[in-house]
Amino acid sequence: MNLSMIRYVLGLVMMFEGAFLSLPCVVALIYNEGKGVSFFIMMIVCLLLGFLLRWKKPKNHVFYVKEGFVTVAASWIIMSFFGGLPFVLNGDIPSVVDAMFETVSGFTTTGSSILSDVEALAKCSLFWRSFTHWIGGMGVFVFVLAVMPLTGGQNIHLMRAESPGPSVGKLVPKIRKTSMILYKIYIVMSVIMVAFLMIGKMPLFDSLLLMFGSAGTGGFSILNTGCATYTPYVQYVIAIFMMLFGINFNVYYFLLIRKFKEAVKYEELRYYLLFIAASTLLIVINIHNTFDALEPVFRHAFFQVSSIITTTGYSSIDFNYWPEFSKVILILLMFSGACAGSTGGGIKVSRLIMMLKTVKKELLSYAHPRTVRKVKFNGRVVEHEVIRGMNVYFVAYSFILMFSILIISLDNFDFLTNFTAIASTLNNIGPGIGLVGPTGNFGMYSDLSKIVMVFDMLAGRLEIFPILVLISPYTWKGLKLRRKK
Amino acid sequence: MNLSMIRYVLGLVMMFEGAFLSLPCVVALIYNEGKGVSFFIMMIVCLLLGFLLRWKKPKNHVFYVKEGFVTVAASWIIMSFFGGLPFVLNGDIPSVVDAMFETVSGFTTTGSSILSDVEALAKCSLFWRSFTHWIGGMGVFVFVLAVMPLTGGQNIHLMRAESPGPSVGKLVPKIRKTSMILYKIYIVMSVIMVAFLMIGKMPLFDSLLLMFGSAGTGGFSILNTGCATYTPYVQYVIAIFMMLFGINFNVYYFLLIRKFKEAVKYEELRYYLLFIAASTLLIVINIHNTFDALEPVFRHAFFQVSSIITTTGYSSIDFNYWPEFSKVILILLMFSGACAGSTGGGIKVSRLIMMLKTVKKELLSYAHPRTVRKVKFNGRVVEHEVIRGMNVYFVAYSFILMFSILIISLDNFDFLTNFTAIASTLNNIGPGIGLVGPTGNFGMYSDLSKIVMVFDMLAGRLEIFPILVLISPYTWKGLKLRRKK
Repeated sequence: MNLSMIRYVLGLVMMFEGAFLSLPCVVALIYNEGKGVSFFIMMIVCLLLGFLLRWKKPKNHVFYVKEGFVTVAASWIIMSFFGGLPFVLNGDIPSVVDAMFETVSGFTTTGSSILSDVEALAKCSLFWRSFTHWIGGMGVFVFVLAVMPLTGGQNIHLMRAESPGPSVGKLVPKIRKTSMILYKIYIVMSVIMVAFLMIGKMPLFDSLLLMFGSAGTGGFSILNTGCATYTPYVQYVIAIFMMLFGINFNVYYFLLIRKFKEAVKYEELRYYLLFIAASTLLIVINIHNTFDALEPVFRHAFFQVSSIITTTGYSSIDFNYWPEFSKVILILLMFSGACAGSTGGGIKVSRLIMMLKTVKKELLSYAHPRTVRKVKFNGRVVEHEVIRGMNVYFVAYSFILMFSILIISLDNFDFLTNFTAIASTLNNIGPGIGLVGPTGNFGMYSDLSKIVMVFDMLAGRLEIFPILVLISPYTWKGLKLRRKK
Repeated sequence: MNLSMIRYVLGLVMMFEGAFLSLPCVVALIYNEGKGVSFFIMMIVCLLLGFLLRWKKPKNHVFYVKEGFVTVAASWIIMSFFGGLPFVLNGDIPSVVDAMFETVSGFTTTGSSILSDVEALAKCSLFWRSFTHWIGGMGVFVFVLAVMPLTGGQNIHLMRAESPGPSVGKLVPKIRKTSMILYKIYIVMSVIMVAFLMIGKMPLFDSLLLMFGSAGTGGFSILNTGCATYTPYVQYVIAIFMMLFGINFNVYYFLLIRKFKEAVKYEELRYYLLFIAASTLLIVINIHNTFDALEPVFRHAFFQVSSIITTTGYSSIDFNYWPEFSKVILILLMFSGACAGSTGGGIKVSRLIMMLKTVKKELLSYAHPRTVRKVKFNGRVVEHEVIRGMNVYFVAYSFILMFSILIISLDNFDFLTNFTAIASTLNNIGPGIGLVGPTGNFGMYSDLSKIVMVFDMLAGRLEIFPILVLISPYTWKGLKLRRKK
C-alpha cells in the first residue's frame, strides 16, 4: 500500500474542501451572519491540513485499485468529518455524531436529516448543507480530476472507485477530459434548473439550494414542510429535473455531440423511463380518490416516483398516508435507483436489468441446453467479470442491508421504520416511511444506529467495495507483513 | 420436450398419492368419521387417473433436466390440487383456493394456514394435513425413487429438481439406493421422535402429527394455541428434533457408516449450530426480563430459533410481543433456513456461507490482485457453475420476494405483515409476524394474494427454477417450433 501517495491525494482533497468552504463564508457575509465564522475557521484548518499533507512529495507513484479505493473511501469520511465540524462550532448541530450524520448524508446525496427544524438553521449552514449535495452528486474526485491533472495512473482508479454503476464509462480516452465534460453538462443543467425555478418566482437563494438538492439527487429540503407548499409549477420543475439528473450523463454527451443513435441505444434509459411511467400510473390508479381532480393526483404521484427512483428524496406530500400498495412501489423504487453514470444512488436500473437477464439466460439454458448464450446489454455482450462483480456487489449489499436493520432494531422502533430507514440510507434516498417518513426525521435514533447509517450511506454512495476495502483487515494485513520483511 | 414421458411419471405420482390417501381413510375408520368418505373418493380418483396416465407406455425415454424440472413442478401442483379436494368435499375447507393453499402449504412443509380453528377439523382431515408435511419434507420423488426404480436417466434429473441445496448430494452411486438410505434415516428418526413424545404422555395421534410437522419441518399445529400449552419436556423434545431434522442427512449417513471425520467435515453444520447458538443467546439477553426464571426464557428463545431456522414454524410463545431486535433476528433466520440436504427450506446456510465467501474473495483480490483465488467449501474448491447457479438463484429469489410483497400489498395490510407473510411462505416457514404471527393466520388475504403465496411456497420448496421453468414461455416455445417442423 502506497501510503505516501494516499496522503498526498488526501491533502489535495482537503485543500479542495477548504476552497468549497469559502462559499458559505460568502453567504454569511451577504446575510451578515456571525455563525459564518465557524466556516471560515474550518476553511483555514482544511487548507492548512491539506498544505501539510502535501508538504512531502511521494517518491513512489505506484497507485493501484486498492490505493484508489482506500483513498476515495478515506476522502469521503474525512471530508464529511471536517465538513460537519462547522455545524458543531456554530451550534446549529451541537452533537458531533449528528453533524457527521448530516454531512455524510449531504455528501453522499442521501438527504436523510436528524434536524426537526431546518428553518432554524443559519443561512450559511443551510447553504453548506445543500452545497455538499451538489459536490457529492457528481463526485469529489470527478471534480478534482477535472480541475487538476494528477500524475501517474491513479486517475482511472480514483474514478472507478467513485463513479456509480457496474462499469466506468470513459467518454473520451482522457480521464481528465471526461471529468470536464461531465462537470460542464452538470453545471449547464444546474443553471437551467435555477432559471426555471426563478421564473416560478422562487428567490435566488432558495432556487440555488433546491437545485443543489435536485442536481445531486440529494434531497435536503429548506422548509420543514419539504416541497409540499411550493406551487404546482415549481413542483413540476423539481420533479422533471430530478428525473433528468437520474439519467446517465453519457446520454447528454452523445446528444451534445449529435450522436443521437448512440444516445437512444441506451437500454437502461428506456427501462428507467418505463419504471417511472409504470410506477406513476399504478400509484395514480391506487390513490386516485385522494383528490377531486386528476392533476394533483398525477403531480404528487409523478413527483414522488421521480424523487424516489432518482434517490433524491424530496416530498410534495406525506406518502405515509398512501395505501400500502403505493408505499411498496416506493419501497421497490428505493432499491431500484436511477441510471448508472447519473448522480443517483441505489442498485441502478442497469444492474437490475442485467440481473434479470441472467435469470432469463438460465431459463433459456434449460429450454435449449446445447446453445451457448451470453448476457447482452446496450447491444454488447456483458463481460463475465462485470456479471461477477455485479453478483458479489448484490450479495454484499444484501448482507449489509440485513445486518444494518438488525443493529438499528436495538432502538426498538417499528419494522417499517427500521427497514425503510436502512433502505433509504443505503440507497442514498433521504426519507423512509413510518417514523422516518417525509414529516419525520432520523434524530430519534441512538448514536450507534446513526453510525450504522453513516456507514450505509457511504457504502451506498461508493457502491460498497471502496468502503469495505478500507475497513477490511486483508487490505492492511498485507501491509504489516510486507513491512516485517 | 418429452411429454409422454412426463405424463407417464405423473401417472406414477398420482398412484402414489392414491396410496397415501388410504391413510386418512384408515384414520376415519378408527375414529368412525363420515368425513373420511371424501378421502376414499379422492383415493379412487387418484388411482384411476394414475392408471389412465400410465395406460400408454412412452416410446421415447429421453429425459433431460428440462423434463425433470417440468415433471417435478407439475407433480407438486397436481398433488396439491388433488390432495386439497377432500377438504372441499367434506366441508372442512369449503373454498378451493383455501384448500389448495393449505395443501401446498402442507406438501411444501411451509405450515402457513388459512384456518382460524384447526381443532374444528375432523381427525382424518387433521391427519392428512399433517401427513403432507412428512411426505413433502423428504420429497415425493425421493420416496418414489426409493420404492420404484424408474428406467432411463430421469432419476438424477428428478432428484436434482426436488432436492434442496446448491448441489445434489448423491451418497452412493445409485440414486435409488441413496433415496432408500435417506428414507430409512428419516423413518428411524421419526419413530424415535414419536417415542420421545409418548414418553412425555402425549397421545399417539398427537405425537404422530407433531412428528410429521417437525420431521418435515412443516409446522402445522394441531391446537389453536400452537405448541404454547405443551409441557416444557415436550417443547424441548420438539425444539431438539426440529434442529436435528434441519441438519444435512448426509451427516447422519456418515455417522451411520462410522465415517466420523466425513461427518465433522461439514462446514455448513458448524455454521448452522453457530447460528442457532448465537441467535438463542442474543434473544435470551434481549428478552431476559419477560420471565422471572432463566429456564423459560431460554426454552422459548431456543424453541423459536430452532423452529424458524429449520423453517418449521411451530411456536411456543407469541413472539409478536418480543422487542424489535428479537423479531428481526427471527426475520433474518427466516431467510437463512437450515442445511442443504435437510428437510428445511430457506436460502440454506451453505448458500449464505458461500455467498459471504465470494465477498471475502473479492476483498482479498483487491488486497492481493496478483493471487488467483477460489472459493472453498467443505475443504473443496467450489465449481464456477455452482457459484453461478447460486447467484442466479439469489437474484430470482430476491425479485420474487419483492414482487410478491408488491402484489399482496393490494390487500392493504401493514408492511410487517406483508413482508413476513412472503418471507414466511417463500422460505416455507409458516407464521410470520404481525397479523400473520403465531396467533394469526393467512385467511384474511384475498384469493389473488393466496395464489401468489401458493406460487411462492412452491418456488421456495423447489428452489425456484423448476417452477420457473414450468411457467417459462421459453420452455414451451421451443416445443411449438419443433412441432411445426
